[in-house]
Amino acid sequence: MRNISFLSDYGTKDEFVGVVKSVILSIAADVQITDITHNIARHDIRAGSLALARASQYLNPGVVLAVVDPGVGSSRRAVAVELSTASSEGYPSVLIGPDNGLLAPAVGLLGGVSRAVSLTNTDFQLPSAGATFAGRDIFAPAAAHLCAGIAFEELGEDIPVATLMPAVVPSAQIQSDQIVAEILWIDSFGNAQLNIGLDDISPLGERFALKILGLPEGATQQPVFLQRVGAQSSDPSAFGKQASTRPLVASIVASYDQIASRDIALVIDSYAMISIAMRQQSAASELSLEEGMSVVMSPLTGDLVELPTRFSQRKS
Amino acid sequence: MRNISFLSDYGTKDEFVGVVKSVILSIAADVQITDITHNIARHDIRAGSLALARASQYLNPGVVLAVVDPGVGSSRRAVAVELSTASSEGYPSVLIGPDNGLLAPAVGLLGGVSRAVSLTNTDFQLPSAGATFAGRDIFAPAAAHLCAGIAFEELGEDIPVATLMPAVVPSAQIQSDQIVAEILWIDSFGNAQLNIGLDDISPLGERFALKILGLPEGATQQPVFLQRVGAQSSDPSAFGKQASTRPLVASIVASYDQIASRDIALVIDSYAMISIAMRQQSAASELSLEEGMSVVMSPLTGDLVELPTRFSQRKS
Amino acid sequence: MRNISFLSDYGTKDEFVGVVKSVILSIAADVQITDITHNIARHDIRAGSLALARASQYLNPGVVLAVVDPGVGSSRRAVAVELSTASSEGYPSVLIGPDNGLLAPAVGLLGGVSRAVSLTNTDFQLPSAGATFAGRDIFAPAAAHLCAGIAFEELGEDIPVATLMPAVVPSAQIQSDQIVAEILWIDSFGNAQLNIGLDDISPLGERFALKILGLPEGATQQPVFLQRVGAQSSDPSAFGKQASTRPLVASIVASYDQIASRDIALVIDSYAMISIAMRQQSAASELSLEEGMSVVMSPLTGDLVELPTRFSQRKS
Repeated sequence: MRNISFLSDYGTKDEFVGVVKSVILSIAADVQITDITHNIARHDIRAGSLALARASQYLNPGVVLAVVDPGVGSSRRAVAVELSTASSEGYPSVLIGPDNGLLAPAVGLLGGVSRAVSLTNTDFQLPSAGATFAGRDIFAPAAAHLCAGIAFEELGEDIPVATLMPAVVPSAQIQSDQIVAEILWIDSFGNAQLNIGLDDISPLGERFALKILGLPEGATQQPVFLQRVGAQSSDPSAFGKQASTRPLVASIVASYDQIASRDIALVIDSYAMISIAMRQQSAASELSLEEGMSVVMSPLTGDLVELPTRFSQRKS
Repeated sequence: MRNISFLSDYGTKDEFVGVVKSVILSIAADVQITDITHNIARHDIRAGSLALARASQYLNPGVVLAVVDPGVGSSRRAVAVELSTASSEGYPSVLIGPDNGLLAPAVGLLGGVSRAVSLTNTDFQLPSAGATFAGRDIFAPAAAHLCAGIAFEELGEDIPVATLMPAVVPSAQIQSDQIVAEILWIDSFGNAQLNIGLDDISPLGERFALKILGLPEGATQQPVFLQRVGAQSSDPSAFGKQASTRPLVASIVASYDQIASRDIALVIDSYAMISIAMRQQSAASELSLEEGMSVVMSPLTGDLVELPTRFSQRKS
Repeated sequence: MRNISFLSDYGTKDEFVGVVKSVILSIAADVQITDITHNIARHDIRAGSLALARASQYLNPGVVLAVVDPGVGSSRRAVAVELSTASSEGYPSVLIGPDNGLLAPAVGLLGGVSRAVSLTNTDFQLPSAGATFAGRDIFAPAAAHLCAGIAFEELGEDIPVATLMPAVVPSAQIQSDQIVAEILWIDSFGNAQLNIGLDDISPLGERFALKILGLPEGATQQPVFLQRVGAQSSDPSAFGKQASTRPLVASIVASYDQIASRDIALVIDSYAMISIAMRQQSAASELSLEEGMSVVMSPLTGDLVELPTRFSQRKS
């Protein structure tokens, strides 16, 4: 195995990523390390797991090293999992990281686990100056030693696959007249990916009213949109008086370029998922969207088309 | 060809860059990928084209992959251009990206185009889940397949070189008693590169009064400096009363170290262009400079040297 | 030599890092370049030297290229230093950068200098368009030519090792009843590393009252904590009235996971140094810590344990 694909929440301000790579190359000098990203929000296991899942099908054969590890030094296990598809060509065969759910969505997409070990063999760890940098001392050496030819089972104790931490990825509620989806990811362009695909939404129609319900439990964020399209007031000027109440209407389109200026749209994104997007603008900024918010989508029928379809900050 | 030099506006928050690299390496495992930068402001074709142009003469033989692509999914063409100088050693021979002007300044500096194709051959594309990530699905595979040995003409339909989108790089207005220049680029140290070289400015003198005129059409930025050095008021205390009116006087110097503390200077930068700079300070922050602003430069004659030459935020 | 480990304050917004790497690969195509970090605060020699020192023992054999260079173009020397340990395996043998103290702490940790040259041989420099980008024109070519087989002494004039700029790394004051330490580094997780190790602090006890004294001379930052634990007032409600006066009590722990929620702790970090930390929170943000602040640590005896041990922003 020659490739290590590396994702973390280490950021690039400090030397962490460089040190991990140096450790890998000191053990396996010919490894090709590809950074997936290191700017996962710190300790955000969910965001890390989703980024890894999105990237997974494009990653190269070899090892995936993923570290978002708020429990470093605790009893959470450090693991390596071998994929059921390890013998098929073209995909990674082993994922290494903390057993906290980070790896689970990617593992699922790549075909599931055949076996797993806890990284307990100190022969393949760095002598540690402290218990706080497992990426450097435990995970990177394990990945590098695998590439250098060590057998998977030598990394540590066999653990039952069923004891691995599962993924917590929310499912959308899909009914014939409404979908309740969740914002999985806001990318750096401000597009908000939902947990629904084209197949989920196209039976309901091509044009939808959207309510955005704010973050669920534990969040301090206020709901940003609470009024249904086609609500009581037929006075258009009423919209201008309540900045937080906006009629959002969005159609399904195939590319950003098909969105009219200042419209909101539902774009079929590059992962075949539905994203809330605007044209050359950040939908997330315009609509104050955040990851984890719920989006209620109701198909629009013909008698509603006279409603305003464009979002405007200042209405005349 | 073994090298791919890669520039984009993808940022490093998401997995985009890692996925593009993984796609390249899955097609051409021995390619050396060098990141130019991925932090071009999103959709800023001008900034991307200028960064690519500045880097161009230092890039290695092989392919340049550049993606700043607000029109992804639209009718804008995806192109590969082969340079007239492709047979000469030491420089890139092919540039790949959207046909929106992004490649043009670099292509010009590297010697011009010999032929061009539109990337229409789907044999050398990824099966696409959506039309929004051409970097992954179209541009990266084209670059990788070229490195893997595919002939240039196999990438798609031949297109007339004359139909390629030209660059829009502003020229300075140079007269015997005045230069009207434009800020091309503000680097991360806060130096503001102008669209003039030493040869343009040195015939006029070594010391200049600067007016900074703010962003032109469509910009909301207010002009930050409107008063000519040597204007009416001879009362130095008057300067303190108008924070936005500052007499800027700057001399040409060869390095930051030759700038006196808190002076403004015209440094001959590492691209042999003139940059507005301060010593170990951000000139852009101090003077509220932005890319695209105009700078009127008037040579200072002897009778003006008694004017204040230092910029100070608090005048006594 | 095949590896170049590269640290700078160039940031990743501009093309600087990509251009330096392109220059290296144009001279020595098979070099493996590992980025340590490029996000050292611009011109912050101290922060750069400490990051380099922390990373140093993990870096691979070959050359270290480090550029934090506020004096570029001035009389400060550009140098290469060969380590006394150059013949031993597993570590870098040459460091290249400005002679401004940046390299000194790493050089010290790696075993000291055997010889040094000033990079004056223009045969191994790029023809320079300006004097402001020594990383591209002087340092990178020197590192690459060394990897390509040039002898160390060909890079320029021999200089006396004793004339190299020393490091300025503060020492802690350690007494039997008190330690006065300094915050060396705040990492991207908000942990604040002090200039003391476990061996320094453990003889005094396991639990300490902390005073944080703010930045020393020349700093505008106000001290954020000035009251000793166990001070006059025995009225707990008094704490609530002075947001800036907080009784900080911290125990030594081995990992973040051993810190109770909202406690402050002294973690033995991954470099075997003591860091002020919180559990899954930024201690630096909560306590307004900055690099360079002093921390007075007094061991707590039994009769003080009834004091509040948790930090709370709102006291009831």
